[in-house]
Amino acid sequence: MSASSPKSTGNTRNRILQVALDSFNRQGERNVSTNHIAADLGISPGNLYYHFRNKADIVYQLFLQYESLVDGYLKVRNGNALAIDDLVFYLESVVDGLWRFRFLHRELEFLLESDDRLRCEYRAFTARCLVAIETILQGLIRGRVLQSLSDELRQALALNIWLVITNWMAFLKTAHDSREPELAEVRQGIYQVLTLHLPYLDPAHRDDVLALRDRYRPAMPWALSGE
Amino acid sequence: MSASSPKSTGNTRNRILQVALDSFNRQGERNVSTNHIAADLGISPGNLYYHFRNKADIVYQLFLQYESLVDGYLKVRNGNALAIDDLVFYLESVVDGLWRFRFLHRELEFLLESDDRLRCEYRAFTARCLVAIETILQGLIRGRVLQSLSDELRQALALNIWLVITNWMAFLKTAHDSREPELAEVRQGIYQVLTLHLPYLDPAHRDDVLALRDRYRPAMPWALSGE
Repeated sequence: MSASSPKSTGNTRNRILQVALDSFNRQGERNVSTNHIAADLGISPGNLYYHFRNKADIVYQLFLQYESLVDGYLKVRNGNALAIDDLVFYLESVVDGLWRFRFLHRELEFLLESDDRLRCEYRAFTARCLVAIETILQGLIRGRVLQSLSDELRQALALNIWLVITNWMAFLKTAHDSREPELAEVRQGIYQVLTLHLPYLDPAHRDDVLALRDRYRPAMPWALSGE
Repeated sequence: MSASSPKSTGNTRNRILQVALDSFNRQGERNVSTNHIAADLGISPGNLYYHFRNKADIVYQLFLQYESLVDGYLKVRNGNALAIDDLVFYLESVVDGLWRFRFLHRELEFLLESDDRLRCEYRAFTARCLVAIETILQGLIRGRVLQSLSDELRQALALNIWLVITNWMAFLKTAHDSREPELAEVRQGIYQVLTLHLPYLDPAHRDDVLALRDRYRPAMPWALSGE
């Protein structure tokens, strides 16, 4: 009886998502089948299909978890003044989200091509993130951490922040080392993001942000010879 | 007799590479098999395997073409002073190279994971590109287009330029529209790259670079609502 009770059903569903996320992160989505996931959990493929139509459905549900995590982190009230500590919170949180769901950005183009529903959802998510980054920049301007910026420059800066932060992990993997980067290395992308802020800092906060940025400085082995 | 002459053999090899590049760009590398390529060319799979061991070998040879194209574009003599026109040439050339071999960056992580030789080659290539971007920045400083920059800042700026330029196409595809972006849209990434240069411009060149940047300004539909 317990196997079909709502609680156990919910547990199985969550366990499938958790095991799928771990496997996708470790081995890449395309190297993991629903049969692998079922076998890892010691359940039958039929039981898995009771909860999810197919692998794309699992990916989609994981994306919704990722999206709600990041949306939660980036809940920024328009009109608030922000301090440097707020900026650190936002950056570390987003990096943490990217890290926990790292398979998504690794195979993003392929995943979006194979699922229209995911593609629409991802597009809306990106638009919300860009708006949130702009709102954070406005908050930092209001908090006098950053100097005032034109709308057009703030928009372009927000997009560069997004491009740098979402692609840092892939850069580490392709240019640096073939092994999976560690969270500490992924956090070093914050150094590159803070570099984007430097020119626009209010002079009163410049030293604090420079010291903060220094904490994330990567070793930059890719800047040496090719091998 | 002509079918096995060196000239015809070389022609077949080049035609295989050309057809593979077109198909990879259009359909994605993982959706194109060597059989597809042979069929498109009207040759037998055996004839294709006479020239290339497998699909990874074709990908590798195409990467070498891409690499030599970009290396050629980025041949920057250390110590030269550079002007704004030089910067435009470098940016447009690199975007052109990324566009012509666009399948590579689209599936980069997967391609590198499946071929050690490609991974080593790509890592060395990235390191050379980063050095070239730094040399270009130094040339622009020498040409008084940019203000003087510390080594550390120049290095971080070069890396941000690389992250923005190499990931612009993927951003267009995932955040903007599912269709393949056009070259004109891919060129608009130059707007984002020039945004990175803005804070460091020598005041005498500021208006020229702002006008130049305006020529590449994207429509930014992703900054509107999610849909």
